[in-house]
Amino acid sequence: MANAQCIFCRIIGGEIPADVVHDGGAFVAFRDIAPKAPVHILIIPRRHIASLNDVESKDGDLMGRMLLAARAIAEQEGVAEAGYRVVVNTGWNGGQSVDHMHFHVLGGRPMQWPPG
Amino acid sequence: MANAQCIFCRIIGGEIPADVVHDGGAFVAFRDIAPKAPVHILIIPRRHIASLNDVESKDGDLMGRMLLAARAIAEQEGVAEAGYRVVVNTGWNGGQSVDHMHFHVLGGRPMQWPPG
Repeated sequence: MANAQCIFCRIIGGEIPADVVHDGGAFVAFRDIAPKAPVHILIIPRRHIASLNDVESKDGDLMGRMLLAARAIAEQEGVAEAGYRVVVNTGWNGGQSVDHMHFHVLGGRPMQWPPG
Repeated sequence: MANAQCIFCRIIGGEIPADVVHDGGAFVAFRDIAPKAPVHILIIPRRHIASLNDVESKDGDLMGRMLLAARAIAEQEGVAEAGYRVVVNTGWNGGQSVDHMHFHVLGGRPMQWPPG
């Protein structure tokens, strides 16, 4: 399931340290090392799924739980009420920088429009 | 379930026209009237849910299906392989402009970083 070349799989494997803020069992959340907002957290499935293009129908429930976790994490970080943005990048045009699908949760400042 | 003051509920009710690209039963997708990319589609639940903060645990499956629909719509629009960005804005800091939760799907150009 893990991909030895994947930096996020290595974080999950404990080989690379990360500031984990939530463990959802099938997914984990940790702080982005290059934050673009005062709160910037990544939520990743434990299983290596390269991108949203590779998510299978059976993973719908997992995706839903990850999105609900984004909300829970925003609450935990104290930014839920003021507002936050959740972003999933897929592929080159999407700006995906690690080929292990992930949700970005950004808050703590007004996010601008367009979203990149 | 519908909110008479809500522009998205009025779209769902057929009172305001929209360029619908996908009907998922419990959710509908249509083109944004102020697109920020060559492909810019909104996916909204039929039921009035004000924001991600108001999504209930039982809606996890619905959220997952909406995210999978984002991928299917990217494919349908011919932008899945080149890449796309999915965005959910919540509250003021998130830049949420309509209080009926929705996913943005943006593609057809390189999306920049940070995402707003």
